[in-house]
Amino acid sequence: MKSKSVRIVGAGLIGTSIGLALKAAGASVQFVDVDAKAELLANDLVKSGKFENPDLIIIATPPSAFKSAIEREETLNPQAILMDIGSVKTKPLLEVSTFEGLLSRFCGTHPMAGREVSGAVSARADLFLDRAWIITPTMETSAAAKAMVLEVIAACGAQVVEMIAEDHDERVALISHLPQTISSLLAAQLSNSNPEALALAGGGLRDTVRIAGSDPKLWGEILAANEAALLPLLISLQSDLSDLISAASGPAKWESLVAAGRAGKSAIPGKHGGKSREYSYLPIVIDDRPGQLGSLFNACAKADVNIEDLALEHSPGQLTAVITLAIAPEDIGRLSEFLTNDGWNVHSVS
Amino acid sequence: MKSKSVRIVGAGLIGTSIGLALKAAGASVQFVDVDAKAELLANDLVKSGKFENPDLIIIATPPSAFKSAIEREETLNPQAILMDIGSVKTKPLLEVSTFEGLLSRFCGTHPMAGREVSGAVSARADLFLDRAWIITPTMETSAAAKAMVLEVIAACGAQVVEMIAEDHDERVALISHLPQTISSLLAAQLSNSNPEALALAGGGLRDTVRIAGSDPKLWGEILAANEAALLPLLISLQSDLSDLISAASGPAKWESLVAAGRAGKSAIPGKHGGKSREYSYLPIVIDDRPGQLGSLFNACAKADVNIEDLALEHSPGQLTAVITLAIAPEDIGRLSEFLTNDGWNVHSVS
Repeated sequence: MKSKSVRIVGAGLIGTSIGLALKAAGASVQFVDVDAKAELLANDLVKSGKFENPDLIIIATPPSAFKSAIEREETLNPQAILMDIGSVKTKPLLEVSTFEGLLSRFCGTHPMAGREVSGAVSARADLFLDRAWIITPTMETSAAAKAMVLEVIAACGAQVVEMIAEDHDERVALISHLPQTISSLLAAQLSNSNPEALALAGGGLRDTVRIAGSDPKLWGEILAANEAALLPLLISLQSDLSDLISAASGPAKWESLVAAGRAGKSAIPGKHGGKSREYSYLPIVIDDRPGQLGSLFNACAKADVNIEDLALEHSPGQLTAVITLAIAPEDIGRLSEFLTNDGWNVHSVS
Repeated sequence: MKSKSVRIVGAGLIGTSIGLALKAAGASVQFVDVDAKAELLANDLVKSGKFENPDLIIIATPPSAFKSAIEREETLNPQAILMDIGSVKTKPLLEVSTFEGLLSRFCGTHPMAGREVSGAVSARADLFLDRAWIITPTMETSAAAKAMVLEVIAACGAQVVEMIAEDHDERVALISHLPQTISSLLAAQLSNSNPEALALAGGGLRDTVRIAGSDPKLWGEILAANEAALLPLLISLQSDLSDLISAASGPAKWESLVAAGRAGKSAIPGKHGGKSREYSYLPIVIDDRPGQLGSLFNACAKADVNIEDLALEHSPGQLTAVITLAIAPEDIGRLSEFLTNDGWNVHSVS
């Protein structure tokens, strides 16, 4: 992306993560966002450039702001390529087609990456690494527009998957919008429940409702934009649930349910080959009080080991915590020994 | 557990992990299992002792084998304490009550720990470390039986949570059996779907159906044993799903759904179970090099502010990272000012 200038409209998780990746690939990047704080943070993160006439404009707004963003941006540079990153692909195409001659400069895309967290604060340049990135060019899309989009996807380290917009919307209804709806429905059952029950929640519940943490406004728009494909799937699940509730008591019906679920789960192919982030993990039990984390990270710095990621876990009613450090595999032996000698309660990993 | 002899019936993940922990705490341990290979492996793992008249018998079988195991074991030593580790607690109590005088020697328990893997080969002594371990003694449970169970839990490093069996079953219906059922129902929808759609599956779908990989036979028994508590929860979710399907089209209904799910998810405590938490979040842009985290946490300690949780976002090749600190709301103004004056790139959140 060297010498390319890219204007990103929408400094959310996806827009900012793309910006970080394009910046690392040599592009000049600038953000605009209706939220001034988000715009400032994203521009800070990529050390944004000042330029007019961007080569590429990436619309990374929520679906409801897409049309007005196109309206504002498409005249900025009459040669600029435009792409979007929205979760539904038929609706933006309809909206773009209302602008005279714009379809040739536009290519719809959808990176299959996201997180239950949102915003520029959660952005990371490798969000798309080895993920599928769907493109939905039409007969009208110019070769230049498609080439630019492929360059962006390559810079983000993602895998291009091409299909028509209608197929896209039907597929994401199953693999994304149905799980989102069901996870939200399940999590909604937890409101007003006994706090003593929720205090016992383990990994099973937490995983199942992880995506229920999604942003209501954004996901309200996404699910609404794809209602036509989503509703039949919900009606099918509703029918299975009714059958389950009304079936005779006893282990047989529950065993068939769990067996059917296991069969469905096994239909999901293994993750795409290729690189995954290969970290080693080092769990350390610490006291939960000010200064402990600082001392620990000082010790890591003394060992000259960079912490790639970390997770902090506390146990119910217990004033100790487990912090798990993710580090490069080649550093783990050295760091483990260093921290143990330094008096830390380092556990081994299985 | 020094000088105690413990007979464990069922050499699965839970039974074997308990055996490893009790052995490490000085007990003599022996396993029996209908699966001869599992029995041998578990006995090898703990270097099992030969003894008659065990002080404690732990029933760690699937629910359907519980009653016959009790029948076989309870006469081995008329003084032995008996405990179980099953996921449902009212049913075994009923079964124990059919044996004359056995209730006083029995204490039901449920360690809130597990792994996606199963079997003795996956056992580890620290499986229960800092996890909740529920006990459900009754009025009939002897002081000696309760004391023995507390000793086991202490040796496993877990935290005792006491409640009556009915409360336990109602709570696990919500936090474990409902998510299992819904995850299985969702995963079952994937069977016979377009493989090209499933090839696009991301982390959201995978997390949501992770527990759908559970063992159908074991979970068929568990869910059946707790049907009475589970069915009302399924009926409530069914009703919400019907309302959702029949509500008028448009973003509003989907936004309310996702908002309700998010509220429910946030009711799950993050750490130190029981306390409800309201954290404030402070994002700080740091350079991605060793020493930065240590310096930052030192600064937080100097400000005498405890970091309740944290998240680090960065990726290889990205020159900057965002660390988001979760702290008590009353500390945020002070910490923000302190860190800004100390030269840190502190952002506010919108």
